[in-house]
Amino acid sequence: MKRAVVLLSGGLDSATTLAIARSEGFEAWALSVDYGQRHRRELECAARVAQSLGAARYTVVTVNLRAVGGSALTADLDVPKDRAYEDMGGGIPITYVPARNTVLLGLALGLAEVVEAFDLFIGANFVDYSGYPDCRPEFLAAFERLANVATRAAVEGRGTFHVHAPLLRWTKADIIRAGSRLGVEYGLTLSCYDPDAEGRACGRCDSCRLRLKGFQEAGLSDPARYQ
Amino acid sequence: MKRAVVLLSGGLDSATTLAIARSEGFEAWALSVDYGQRHRRELECAARVAQSLGAARYTVVTVNLRAVGGSALTADLDVPKDRAYEDMGGGIPITYVPARNTVLLGLALGLAEVVEAFDLFIGANFVDYSGYPDCRPEFLAAFERLANVATRAAVEGRGTFHVHAPLLRWTKADIIRAGSRLGVEYGLTLSCYDPDAEGRACGRCDSCRLRLKGFQEAGLSDPARYQ
Repeated sequence: MKRAVVLLSGGLDSATTLAIARSEGFEAWALSVDYGQRHRRELECAARVAQSLGAARYTVVTVNLRAVGGSALTADLDVPKDRAYEDMGGGIPITYVPARNTVLLGLALGLAEVVEAFDLFIGANFVDYSGYPDCRPEFLAAFERLANVATRAAVEGRGTFHVHAPLLRWTKADIIRAGSRLGVEYGLTLSCYDPDAEGRACGRCDSCRLRLKGFQEAGLSDPARYQ
Repeated sequence: MKRAVVLLSGGLDSATTLAIARSEGFEAWALSVDYGQRHRRELECAARVAQSLGAARYTVVTVNLRAVGGSALTADLDVPKDRAYEDMGGGIPITYVPARNTVLLGLALGLAEVVEAFDLFIGANFVDYSGYPDCRPEFLAAFERLANVATRAAVEGRGTFHVHAPLLRWTKADIIRAGSRLGVEYGLTLSCYDPDAEGRACGRCDSCRLRLKGFQEAGLSDPARYQ
């Protein structure tokens, strides 16, 4: 059975990505990164999602991106609420975390090398947020090229790394429909950037609004808990 | 004054790299990464080196690469001692940390974006250890390409990232001679992979042996403390 490392945040996209990796026959090593995100509650969800979707292992790596800052998710900046969808698409939002996906994929690559996997899965998507630089196809292609010169496994010719981003060009409704077919329990996931102490979603940040719109367009109801 | 982010481990190579960045007129933001390395004592050295060489800021980011493992520096594996120089050059040593430089440069890139720097300095060198995949020119070139598609700063056209590895093709003796001319206080640095509780170098690991050989070839004495 081929082994893959799947980045798992606890949100809707990465849960669907894990389900896709499993449906493609991969033994999945789920990896969550505690990077000091304000919505750390998502990590509890990630652990439950990993179990629910039959991940072979679940690993958490801590990296303190708060020491770097520069984002509403890792510094004391307000998370935007109640924004119009048109505004979300224009420019790069303040929830962009500098170099986050480079660091996350770097950690996934290190784990892949240790467990002898050559497939990395990430739930990157650039339909909703066309602005996030590190969710674009050219970024993922550049990381794949990097992976194949960065590692012992590649240099010794034991395999070629592939970065899989199956959701890249899907709408949120596409993602939810595909995940529902694959048995993703979306009630276990948390997409909110600013959940309350009980882990309930705010329903008003960009991430919540895009999620709710996606469920609506898919003709399904969102089982997540809202405030 | 142009600003650069300089990766600083506390060892000889990165201290020299910081001195070079300063001599080229950069305001230097020194960045150390506490990745769970067994020789964490090097971080105390890094802070002193940063001050001694006039870094504008000194930042430490913690990332738990022990959760990934796979190296004598981050797992419970023995650091090789008393190896012949010929053996050090053959293959990739067990002190290689999977994807470490990808993660370190990723963190440097994030910090650079936040502080509006476009120059990253790393003390990578591939003369002594030709085997380390992530110290090779092709790795550094691939990371530079990645940086220029990964970030808000690059996508918005505010600048182009450059990865500087001034030591890349130098021998250890070249590095020591250059650093000595630039006023690096090598007594503040620690290269050892396995220092004792007092922070004294073992003198026997590959890193100590290459350092001592470099000082000898440069006709200088090593001011570091040995056991």
